[in-house]
Amino acid sequence: MSYELYYWPTIQGRGEFVRLALEEAGVPYVDVARAPEPDGGVPAMMALLDGDSVPHPPFAPPFLKSGRLLIGQTAAILVFLGERHGLSPKTESGRLWVHQIQLTIADLVTEAHDTHHPIASSLYYEDQREAAARRAESFRAERMQKYLGWFETILERGGGPWLAGRSLTYADLSLFQVLEGLRFAFPKATKRLERKVPRVVALRDRVADRPAIAAYLASERRIPFNQMGIFRRYPELDP
Amino acid sequence: MSYELYYWPTIQGRGEFVRLALEEAGVPYVDVARAPEPDGGVPAMMALLDGDSVPHPPFAPPFLKSGRLLIGQTAAILVFLGERHGLSPKTESGRLWVHQIQLTIADLVTEAHDTHHPIASSLYYEDQREAAARRAESFRAERMQKYLGWFETILERGGGPWLAGRSLTYADLSLFQVLEGLRFAFPKATKRLERKVPRVVALRDRVADRPAIAAYLASERRIPFNQMGIFRRYPELDP
Repeated sequence: MSYELYYWPTIQGRGEFVRLALEEAGVPYVDVARAPEPDGGVPAMMALLDGDSVPHPPFAPPFLKSGRLLIGQTAAILVFLGERHGLSPKTESGRLWVHQIQLTIADLVTEAHDTHHPIASSLYYEDQREAAARRAESFRAERMQKYLGWFETILERGGGPWLAGRSLTYADLSLFQVLEGLRFAFPKATKRLERKVPRVVALRDRVADRPAIAAYLASERRIPFNQMGIFRRYPELDP
Repeated sequence: MSYELYYWPTIQGRGEFVRLALEEAGVPYVDVARAPEPDGGVPAMMALLDGDSVPHPPFAPPFLKSGRLLIGQTAAILVFLGERHGLSPKTESGRLWVHQIQLTIADLVTEAHDTHHPIASSLYYEDQREAAARRAESFRAERMQKYLGWFETILERGGGPWLAGRSLTYADLSLFQVLEGLRFAFPKATKRLERKVPRVVALRDRVADRPAIAAYLASERRIPFNQMGIFRRYPELDP
């Protein structure tokens, strides 16, 4: 039985962290909202999100369906997939450490989103441009460095090559995705910072070279970055 | 051996979700940054946060030390405590569900914080007042209702009395804390909304009546809400 992933069909967004884990694990899945209606499409996703009879309705996409189990929240989905498909450590302490890294990545993702939408997701960027400029400035000057510096530190202390040591985990796939997103949204600021975090850059390259990931990135299943997702390129936010 | 909790000593903040779980579990713990130096105090916390030899340094407080295990990220700490002290379900699906609820509460907490600091945590409120007014308006008009409405829905569908059914979990303690915080920060908006979410309010009361929680709330261990924490009262943000 294959997994069903539910996420907005036109963006990488938070769904991409789940897609990368599914692709690396090599397990079959249906990206439901990208599949044709009536079985697929956004209506099929909304039916689970807003349906009156869903016992455990997710708060928001992405969510994953595995048989009768419906799991929302990216980090929780990755805990589930990680344990099932060898993408997280076998020890409790190792699993908690990888989860902690993932939750920190999730915080970074939220902050990256809020650089272009600091006031409200329901408003246009154009209606929060001034606040966006200020928030992006703080993100570039303080937050990006703090986050990427922390990933560099833990790679150094752990001995690598992966975040949790010798074995790849879902957190490595997520860090790859975050660096790709930062390169897209803040090419100048990211380029400057990358000199200071060589281990993070090397990890990104190592993930991109994984056969399953390389095949995925070259396929049509990988949606290109665009101006609707979490990472968006507004040149004025990366002067 | 008792747990060591590390968090900023003058605020409830994210540490409070951990404190509530420890108090309900009735396990001994030291709130290290609130203990006297040299063993306690903020320097003891910074030593683990910034120390060169910490193998798994947390990104930020709160973090919990249990023997040699050091766990950061509130939701990860609660996974750990929940499994050890009967504050999460025994089944995998139940644990994932409670974790998913907790991660949604964490998102709400971040959004509540950002109402008064939409631009940068490193700036004063006074320097981001205009953006704060706009973000708070969206939070009150859209987000609070969406979050509290979701909690109400899952309480209704699950049959209660707790979020995950018949047994209290750490997510219930966290929802209590969030409602307390919203009442402090947005008394008017919260009062209006509470009429629509009677199950959430009843759960809050049920948590407050737990003997261990009632004793904690009446003790000096409970730091009062104040203008330094995540939930702050600025009357202009709750007109």
